[in-house]
Parts: sequence; C-alpha cells; structure tokens
Amino acid sequence: MVMKTAAQAVRKKMSKVIESVWQANLLIDRVGLASLTWGNASQIDHGKGLIAIKPSGIAYDKLKRDDIVLTDMKGVKIASNLRPSSDLPSHLALYRAFPSIGAVVHTHSIFATSFAQACRPVPCIGTTHADYSSMEIPVTNPMSKSKISTDYEKNIGESIVHKMQQSRIDPRQCPFILVANHGPVTWGQDAPKAVENAIVLEQICQMALWTITLNKNIKTIPQALIDKHFFRKHGVHAYYGQEKSKKTQ
Amino acid sequence: MVMKTAAQAVRKKMSKVIESVWQANLLIDRVGLASLTWGNASQIDHGKGLIAIKPSGIAYDKLKRDDIVLTDMKGVKIASNLRPSSDLPSHLALYRAFPSIGAVVHTHSIFATSFAQACRPVPCIGTTHADYSSMEIPVTNPMSKSKISTDYEKNIGESIVHKMQQSRIDPRQCPFILVANHGPVTWGQDAPKAVENAIVLEQICQMALWTITLNKNIKTIPQALIDKHFFRKHGVHAYYGQEKSKKTQ
Amino acid sequence: MVMKTAAQAVRKKMSKVIESVWQANLLIDRVGLASLTWGNASQIDHGKGLIAIKPSGIAYDKLKRDDIVLTDMKGVKIASNLRPSSDLPSHLALYRAFPSIGAVVHTHSIFATSFAQACRPVPCIGTTHADYSSMEIPVTNPMSKSKISTDYEKNIGESIVHKMQQSRIDPRQCPFILVANHGPVTWGQDAPKAVENAIVLEQICQMALWTITLNKNIKTIPQALIDKHFFRKHGVHAYYGQEKSKKTQ
Amino acid sequence: MVMKTAAQAVRKKMSKVIESVWQANLLIDRVGLASLTWGNASQIDHGKGLIAIKPSGIAYDKLKRDDIVLTDMKGVKIASNLRPSSDLPSHLALYRAFPSIGAVVHTHSIFATSFAQACRPVPCIGTTHADYSSMEIPVTNPMSKSKISTDYEKNIGESIVHKMQQSRIDPRQCPFILVANHGPVTWGQDAPKAVENAIVLEQICQMALWTITLNKNIKTIPQALIDKHFFRKHGVHAYYGQEKSKKTQ
Repeated sequence: MVMKTAAQAVRKKMSKVIESVWQANLLIDRVGLASLTWGNASQIDHGKGLIAIKPSGIAYDKLKRDDIVLTDMKGVKIASNLRPSSDLPSHLALYRAFPSIGAVVHTHSIFATSFAQACRPVPCIGTTHADYSSMEIPVTNPMSKSKISTDYEKNIGESIVHKMQQSRIDPRQCPFILVANHGPVTWGQDAPKAVENAIVLEQICQMALWTITLNKNIKTIPQALIDKHFFRKHGVHAYYGQEKSKKTQ
Repeated sequence: MVMKTAAQAVRKKMSKVIESVWQANLLIDRVGLASLTWGNASQIDHGKGLIAIKPSGIAYDKLKRDDIVLTDMKGVKIASNLRPSSDLPSHLALYRAFPSIGAVVHTHSIFATSFAQACRPVPCIGTTHADYSSMEIPVTNPMSKSKISTDYEKNIGESIVHKMQQSRIDPRQCPFILVANHGPVTWGQDAPKAVENAIVLEQICQMALWTITLNKNIKTIPQALIDKHFFRKHGVHAYYGQEKSKKTQ
Repeated sequence: MVMKTAAQAVRKKMSKVIESVWQANLLIDRVGLASLTWGNASQIDHGKGLIAIKPSGIAYDKLKRDDIVLTDMKGVKIASNLRPSSDLPSHLALYRAFPSIGAVVHTHSIFATSFAQACRPVPCIGTTHADYSSMEIPVTNPMSKSKISTDYEKNIGESIVHKMQQSRIDPRQCPFILVANHGPVTWGQDAPKAVENAIVLEQICQMALWTITLNKNIKTIPQALIDKHFFRKHGVHAYYGQEKSKKTQ
Repeated sequence: MVMKTAAQAVRKKMSKVIESVWQANLLIDRVGLASLTWGNASQIDHGKGLIAIKPSGIAYDKLKRDDIVLTDMKGVKIASNLRPSSDLPSHLALYRAFPSIGAVVHTHSIFATSFAQACRPVPCIGTTHADYSSMEIPVTNPMSKSKISTDYEKNIGESIVHKMQQSRIDPRQCPFILVANHGPVTWGQDAPKAVENAIVLEQICQMALWTITLNKNIKTIPQALIDKHFFRKHGVHAYYGQEKSKKTQ
C-alpha cells in the first residue's frame, strides 16, 4: 500500500485517535457485544474536524490499525483506502449536534437490541443504571417510509438527535439510546469510554429484563437515589475513584 | 489407511470443498452451536454432482480432514471410509430442489431449537433479522406417521422444500428454516456462509425471545425497513462492505 | 501417603474404573455443570462389587486420581484415604436396583436444577430429548420428614428407584431423573456416558424452558417421532454413528 | 513509592489479610461477578481493629497487592496511598455489628442484582439454597431521602444490620442479603469464603428465577429438608467434606 506524503501526515496527526478507535473496535468484539462484522466505534477530533471510524464489513479478527478510516465532517474519506462503516452518517449527525460527544459506538448486543426491538425504554430501576444515567434510556421514534428510503443512516442519527432534543436530554446525563427496531447507540468523551458505556448498557438491559420478569409493577427508583449515584460518579462533587485521593494523601 | 488411486483423485479434485466443509464443521463446534457429535455441515459442487459432508457420530475434537465423506447426488459414498451424517438425505433434498444452495448446515443451537420445538415462526421484528432475511423464518409442517417411519431424513428435507415452495420462498431471500419439533437448518453459497447464517439465526432467535417477553404484542417491522436492510447487504444495489470501495478508491 | 500392599493391589485392579471416574469428575467441572465442590460421578464394577467415587468436598481443581475413593456395595471404604461423597448411598441404591446402570452422576446444573426445584417433569417436546430418552423426564416424589431425618442420602436413591419402578421406567430408556427440590441425577454404562447424559439433560432443560415460554400449550411430540429418534441411536436397529459402516465399507 | 517504616510494619503484620483480600478481589473479576471497577471485597482483623479493602475505581486487571487499602474501624486510611472503596462505610457497619463476620463482598452480579432491583426476597426453594442458608434471602427496606443524602454508604450498611436484627438473622445462618434497588452483599469468616458465597448467591438467584418462571406458585421447601442440608454442612454435626474423615481413617 503506497500512501502519499500528505495522507501520511494526516494519519500521523490523528494517530492517537486512530489507535483509540482501533482498540475500541477490537474491544467490542472481545467482550462479545457484536458478532461477525456487526457494530462499530468512531471518535472525533472536534478541533480538526476529523473522524476516525471502523471500515465497513471487515471482520474484527482481520481489522488492522491502518484499516481505520478517516473522514471529514461531511463523511468524505481522507487518507484512507477502505470504505467507512455504512453507519458513519449516524455518527456524524451526533457529532454535529453535540460538541460534548467525542466518540460513538453502535452494537447489536443481545439484551439492549431486544429492548430496542420491543420499542421499550429502560426505566431507571436500579443503582447500576443510575451510576451511568440519571434518566430512563429512551427509544427513538419510528422512522417514516421516506426517511428510510433516502439518507437512511443520516436519518437514524437525526432521529437520535431529535429524540434527545425533544426529551431535553444532555448527552452527558445519559450516554445511551435505543434506535427503535434496530439496536443501541452509546457515546462518551472518547472511544474507550463509549465502549465502556456499551458494556454497561448491555448489563443494565439484561438486569432490567429479569427485574421486570420478577416484578411486573416495577417502578423507577426515587430521584434522590438516582441523583446520589449519578453525582457520586459525575460532576464537581464526584467522590468515586482516585482522582482526588492521590493529591490529598 | 490405504486408498485406491481413483479415490485419491476424486478427493483431490474436491479438496477445496472438503477443506471448506471440514473448517465449517469445526466452526459449528467452536462457536457453541452444537454439543457432542450433534450438527453437521455439507457443501455441494453442483457441476461435479458431488457432496462433502461430516461423517456420522464423530466428536468434533476428533474430526480430521480425511474423515469428511464424499457422496454422489444419490447419497452413495465415494472415495470415503466413514458413514456420512445420517442427515445427508435432508441435505440432498435441498440440493436437488435449489441450485442456488451451495451448502447446508444443521445444528441444535439452543434458541433456534426452542423456536422449532415451539413450532413458532420467528417474525421479522428487528433490523438484525432483516439484514439476513426479508421475511419471517418459517417452520415446516409436522410430518405424518408414514413419513416418519420410512425415509425419515429424506422426508425432513422434502418437508423443508415443500414449505418453501408453498410459501414461495426463494432460498436467497431467507437462508433459515426451522424443522418442526426438531431444530434449525440454514444454507448459503458455501459452507462458511451457511455456518455464518446458523450463528446469525441463533442470535436472531435469542433476541426474538427476549423481545417477545418484553412486548407480547410485538409486530413485524415496516416492509420499507426490511427492504432497506436486506437490500443494503444483498443484490446489485448493496453498499455494505468493501466490494466496490476498493475499486472506486 | 503410604498404602498397604493389599490396598495397592485393589486400586490396581480397579485402575481403569478409577481413571474413568476421575476424568468424568474433571469433565463435570470443565463443562460447567457444577460449581465449587458440588456434583459427583461414580462407576461400579458389578462383577467385583466395587465402586469408585469422588471424595467429599474436594475442589475440582485439586482433585487427583489417587483421591478417588473405592468402596464396597455397602459403602465401606476400601484402599482409600478420603471420605467418599456424601451422596454415595444414593448411588449405591441405584446400583443395587439396576444391574444395567454402570455409572451415576449428580450435578447442580442450572436449568435441570430449576426443573427439579419446580417439581416439574420435562415433557418430550423435541427430537433432542427423544434422541436420549423415549419418555418424559420424571421428578421423584417429595420425601417424608422421617426419610429426610434418617439415612437421607440412601432414601434419595430409593426415592429414585421407587419413582422408576412406579412408572415402569427401564433405566436404558431414560438416563435422567430429577430429585424433587434438589437437582438432576443421570446414569449410563460408564462414567463418561453418564456425564454426557448430564450435559444433554442440561441442554434439554434449557430448551424446554424457552419452548414453554414461547408456547404455553406445548404438547408432547408424536410417539412415532419419539420412537424414530430414540431407536435411531439405541438398540439393534440403530444406524447413527460409525459402528457398522466401518465393517460394511 | 516511598513508605515510612511504621507504615511498612503495619502492612507487614496485615500481610496475610492483604493477600487474602487481593486474591478475593481478583476472583470476583475472574468468575464474572462484576464488570469494570464494580464490586469489592474486604476482610477484618477484629483483634487488631484493622480492615483491608479494595481501592476505589481501580480496574481489576490493574489491581496490585500494594493497592489494597488498610483502614481502622472508623475508616481512616493507614499505611496506604489510595482511597478505599466508596462502599467502605457499609462494610464497617457490618463489622461493628457482627463479630462473627470476618469479610464482606459486594458485587453487581446479574441475577442477584435483578432480585435486589425487584425488591423480592429469594425464597428457599431448593437444597442448593439450603446448603448455604437456612432461611429466605432478605431484601433491606428502602432508605429515606435523608439517609440517602447524608452518610449514604454508612446508612446502606446500617440498613443491612437493621434488617437482620429486625428479622432476628444470625449472619452465620444466612451469609447473603440484597440491598433494595441496588445489589447483593455477602460475608464469611474470610474473604475467599465471602466470595464463594457471592458465587453461590448468583447461582441460587438464577435458579430461583427459572424455577419461579416454571412454577408461579412455588413454595418454600419443608423445614426438615432445609435443616438437613444446612446442618449437613454447618455446625457440630456436619458430615460433608474431609475434616473428620482424615482423622478417622
């Protein structure tokens, strides 16, 4: 593979993002969130206006770092040989709408996809959920026939953005959404965090299924408990983890 | 093991098909679609009129390339020592009826077998399903006592063919079927593709079970969405994967 | 560990049975049928009147061949240092009642134990079941308080024997039973076969659970189909596997 | 990392407890009871008034023996660099209330968390349960808003203690509890035993879910059967395992 010098320079200045996206895609496969060639992760450098994303239809065990595709904000390929994931336009819609989103992941994980197929939002019925999201996990509205026929993948992304704006959801308060009839999309500040959120979503959904099976009349946990867990891990009063303790030692 | 020269020549000219069938059978075991000696994969060379298939009752961890059995279209063993899978006549019925089928796989995978045992077709309730099949996954009709007593395995194959013809199903539109009370059969252009379809069917069935659990009144997704997903991956307008992008780079 | 010469001689003449029981116990652990120290396998030499069985409470990853305990038909330890599994008297009751039983396995595998806890027999609703058993898998009757208090483990074995005699079950027709409120017991001609039956039972039970979930009114499959599958693998007219084909080649 | 001599001396005299806690935390991850940084194990030396516990927010694959945090009974860090698990105050409440508790484990294991989220106690419906607990597994009462807002983790621990005292539960009779809306807590004489109990609880909960699915009207097993199993493994009349047999050989 011969690449022009300009292309090499672009890939070089995006090398950390490429590495992050490559590792995140391999992790999707390793933790069992997607079979075959399904699923994809991307990450954006908002400053440079460049996105790194998995190529379309490449098996995870064949995926090499150099296969990761770079594109601009319009989805035009830059310094790359392979075609990007067909879901790229969905990712771009999220990046355009929300500067706080640094990476996007889509999988077909079993339990999250089952909730998406059932068009059933996941209520916040436990602290594991509240540790990651302060609200129920929404499902997008079904798409019209014309939006399916033309610019389908872009319209998926816009249906996500629309649902979030309609429900006044800040992406930092809920890093998960379910695309109706389809499957989950998650995000985060970078690709590893977006995959972490995909792993967590799958567990939340599996536990929600069994919880609902055990208690048909399950209710959302109290707002005070949601806030306690969410803000224990997020925001200026967070006290989970090591970020302060090392300094205050 | 001493083989006659003629036999060696036959196996040599079928060596790619034998390798493909051997690898496909090992994959059935590796991905957990069948336990013990259950399940089998075959592949046909329609031009030569020869089929390669797993031998009967051999454990996957003992299965060697040379154990793969060759037969003609009537199921007569050729250039092989072992007895072919007892399900061979089912495979032959499919090969006779559908020239577009190049390989057949049968497993006892947990969730697909559960739908087969429940005699419940799998409705197309998600895009994962639509990516692989543009219709609901059918269940064969129960077999009469006389068809069970005589030529049982051949009659299984013919019950599959009958169901497909009755429902006007082109095997390229739906690579899956459930044999009533028994388990799944899948196909494809070659053995790796037929196993891929068996993997996908198991995931579709597991997700369908949880979706139905979450939403008793689940309906088929809109035809436009089915078509969008199916034709994104199949036919002349497919745009998933790398087949065109490499040329148009 | 010093053993007397007589003890060494006994262990030597039982060495194949000891090896078989040791491997079978390791397999119980490897395939995930039991956690921690749960579960046990034994095998009898009916001619010698000697049984080899797992010692009580030893973790599978510490289990050595020399730890396998030998006993006589009354459960008296012979040529062994460790205490036998506390379930030995259950095994002995089966060996005394049925000369066709050569080995017994008990596990706490998830799905079989769930049916046992539910006191719900497993109806024959699929060919996977019929391949191994020509009838529904029975559940023992609950035990009286006095039978629980005295000779508990022996009484478990006798409750199995009683259920089989009451229902006129030949152990060769159904190698599985569920002890009410407790868990599964399986048997076979030797320990590897009894463990194989434990693996199969777990799959049958998991598939039965999902089948019942999908179809509340599920009925037993036709007797002709049960017989076809059972006798395809058992008895003088069996034609599955390689036993005849090699000779008739 | 430079540590003062006094700190080194403290860690040295607690080295066995530190090792035990470190291994127990690694085991939580290895057996799949918690994802990411979730879950934690601690162990106390009641005589020294010192506790060893997992640090907060450290990934299991990065956890080193020296990361294990020591604290006193008030939760003040001793001879340690990292911040202890945010759940430390819950553990301390248990250690203060029950001298028989030597170690505490908290996980987010799927099935136990589902029962906790459903606020549904786990009835004793099988002998696997009775082997470890002679009663139903309780769920704590929901916490008031003020107890959530202030000293949340300490109040979780006190809600456990309160539930046990209210229901007159000796921690040696039931090493499991479910924190309402949250997840499981288990204990034992040392950290390996507390993790073993967490493994067992997860299996009991999974089997209970399927048992309830199969039999909506399931009832607790007879007290005689519970007692038989519990006291076969616990107390002066226990006869499971090797502890006596070796001596009486």
